[in-house]
Amino acid sequence: MERTLVSQTIEKIGSEVLLKGWVNTRRDHGKIVFIDLRDRTGLVQIVLNPELAEGLHSEDVISVTGLIKARPEKLVNPKLSTGTVEIEAQKVELISKSAELPFDMGQETLQLELPTLLDNRALSFRHSKIQAIFKVQEVIINAFRQALKDKDFLEFQSPSIIPSIPEGGAEVFEVKYFEHKAYLAQSPQLYKSLLVSAFERVFSVNQVFRAEPSVTTSHIAEFTSLDAEMGFIDSWKEVKDMAEYTIKFILNEIQTKCSQELALFRAVIPEVSKEIPHLKLREAQQIIFDRTSRDCRKEKDLAPEDEREICKWATEKHHSELVFISHYPTKYRPFYTYPDDEDPEYNQGFDLLGRGREWLTGGRRIHDYKTLLQHAKEWKIDPDKIKTYLQAFEYGMPPLGGFAFGAERITMFVLGLSNIREASMFPRDMERVDVHL
Amino acid sequence: MERTLVSQTIEKIGSEVLLKGWVNTRRDHGKIVFIDLRDRTGLVQIVLNPELAEGLHSEDVISVTGLIKARPEKLVNPKLSTGTVEIEAQKVELISKSAELPFDMGQETLQLELPTLLDNRALSFRHSKIQAIFKVQEVIINAFRQALKDKDFLEFQSPSIIPSIPEGGAEVFEVKYFEHKAYLAQSPQLYKSLLVSAFERVFSVNQVFRAEPSVTTSHIAEFTSLDAEMGFIDSWKEVKDMAEYTIKFILNEIQTKCSQELALFRAVIPEVSKEIPHLKLREAQQIIFDRTSRDCRKEKDLAPEDEREICKWATEKHHSELVFISHYPTKYRPFYTYPDDEDPEYNQGFDLLGRGREWLTGGRRIHDYKTLLQHAKEWKIDPDKIKTYLQAFEYGMPPLGGFAFGAERITMFVLGLSNIREASMFPRDMERVDVHL
Repeated sequence: MERTLVSQTIEKIGSEVLLKGWVNTRRDHGKIVFIDLRDRTGLVQIVLNPELAEGLHSEDVISVTGLIKARPEKLVNPKLSTGTVEIEAQKVELISKSAELPFDMGQETLQLELPTLLDNRALSFRHSKIQAIFKVQEVIINAFRQALKDKDFLEFQSPSIIPSIPEGGAEVFEVKYFEHKAYLAQSPQLYKSLLVSAFERVFSVNQVFRAEPSVTTSHIAEFTSLDAEMGFIDSWKEVKDMAEYTIKFILNEIQTKCSQELALFRAVIPEVSKEIPHLKLREAQQIIFDRTSRDCRKEKDLAPEDEREICKWATEKHHSELVFISHYPTKYRPFYTYPDDEDPEYNQGFDLLGRGREWLTGGRRIHDYKTLLQHAKEWKIDPDKIKTYLQAFEYGMPPLGGFAFGAERITMFVLGLSNIREASMFPRDMERVDVHL
Repeated sequence: MERTLVSQTIEKIGSEVLLKGWVNTRRDHGKIVFIDLRDRTGLVQIVLNPELAEGLHSEDVISVTGLIKARPEKLVNPKLSTGTVEIEAQKVELISKSAELPFDMGQETLQLELPTLLDNRALSFRHSKIQAIFKVQEVIINAFRQALKDKDFLEFQSPSIIPSIPEGGAEVFEVKYFEHKAYLAQSPQLYKSLLVSAFERVFSVNQVFRAEPSVTTSHIAEFTSLDAEMGFIDSWKEVKDMAEYTIKFILNEIQTKCSQELALFRAVIPEVSKEIPHLKLREAQQIIFDRTSRDCRKEKDLAPEDEREICKWATEKHHSELVFISHYPTKYRPFYTYPDDEDPEYNQGFDLLGRGREWLTGGRRIHDYKTLLQHAKEWKIDPDKIKTYLQAFEYGMPPLGGFAFGAERITMFVLGLSNIREASMFPRDMERVDVHL
């Protein structure tokens, strides 16, 4: 008999079917045993006599042949998508035996500490709430791709191994590369920019690496970077608009495809206005000063409390939980960021903030070869170490810009997770690579 | 005025438009200058008077305001998709000046040696034939995803940094990971298998790393691995069938979406029969012996000449350029490969060969925890180093299998490229990471 999936049972009342899956929970009631069987589509209740259920416990893999019956109305379980049916088991086969579990998997919410969840990753993945995180993440990544494909962007694979660290920096992992030293890419920035000189519009979904020597709830050493870059722009605002379109597309896809997953986390998609409000950094700082009397008007960036305050402002004034901040001081952003023509002390880089956190970063880049070389020198970057990148600019580069964000961070912010490690299947940090180091 | 793309010009005859792009070629004919303007959608001919064209040369980035005119029938250029029109330039602006080119970009085929192409990667990407390679690759990767999404597989992001090398091996890159040693993943194999215990069906598109200390035309140090894994199989043949479905889906997508790109390479999609023929290794070797008198019947694998011969056989006998070979000697495949129940000296691993080369590798995996532990021991693998992976099997793993292949290899085979480096945007090998080491 061909396998029936759990989700298909509600359409096959009265049929004899073959189900396969894991014993999610077992409840013994004297002469009758209930098993919730779990497969990739959900849970369904199996009714067995004690002989058929003998020895079965949680996480055993079994196949069940049985009859699908409609439940009497008062026994319908509204919490289960298959709550209108149950399976009267005729035959049970053990496919794979599970060892005794180190903790109870039957909770609606896994009440475990993060280290326990990660030490038992293969097990914690089986919980519906943890599965939901990675279903939402898949939707986010796929929506990012779809949004940009619809706008004629080419997807490319950015390399992880890079030959040198142009900007120096301790936060880069070193690789023993045959007889040489190489490094792990912190971002596809230089590659995506150089590709604009040939393909105009490109995006990538790739792992990037940050050797941040600190243990916080929002940093991991390897994450999935969603990167886009586009040429022939007339202004940095075109880049901001493309970022806005992309984020809205993603949020809309989550709303449409992940209602169940959002419900599990009691999460709602952020409220966004028709046009996401935008402030220059100095404007934002003035607003914060006016609202709180906290004077951050000469700071080079917003502190976490400022980010929260300006998000509060945007929500109150513009009914938007997202807000763009642009025009940071030029000298504190990367060498390739485009200084504003009218006031070159500030540049045309921007961040998208939401719910008090940084969601995305982007901006216009310098496209003129000589200006770029000049900036590289001022930023103390050896042009020889970015030769391949510079070549694209030497031979005719259109005005360009782009943006980037981490798939794990967006997942975390949308679902309201408290630690980014929850949004990474296999989080790496100073203390852990799968196992505790 | 809003920008018009080159491909849109044929629908706007008689309109005044603004075009932006690169000077692809310039031809001077006394009082008239022709420029082929290139943007991401193709080439179109611009007609200018010499003053407007003053100083313009190849790869300059310009904007052109002009009138779209239909060409007289005898001047239609059938080689150009916009060959029915030309643009009478009224105004030209230089957006970005290009330096003198190190080589002539105007050839239909770039007649350059690979090292020159790679030393000038930013420039070589601008050639239509090189762009075609990466458009085909995008279609391959996207088709892989689509094929598996349609079959209910979840896409996941596999980590690049791994804690240890369970199977030992010199072909792994070492990473200085904070105060520890870590390594770069050679494959997502263990991660995708363990995920089957929770998600049943998963796939990934990720960079993987091989420190192969040899310079050949078919090896690079970093490539894009397309990986799939599925649970609750009844037999290894289900895995083979899924691989067959996936490859056929991909080939069909290339056929449908890349006719222009295929034409540039005079390439045709391999001929495939309704069911791809399948042989056990020993059967294949017998056929090779019968056809050539070359006796490889006791070898553990097929040599390159054997692979070519058996592909020839499949094409002649079954009108299929692709052929599956299965049942390799158990002890020469990885520890997790499932030994055949009837003849455990051979296992249920398989390769898909095509046009004399290996396209894909896959197989059923051991799902029983004790058997897997036993194999790990026999293969001299420290179970402690694969703890996270083994955990999935300890707590109930369904019968499973999967397959994997490299995006660059498939691109190379389909387009008939002579070196895999041509199919990688930024190929890494012993001698090169962007620049010569």
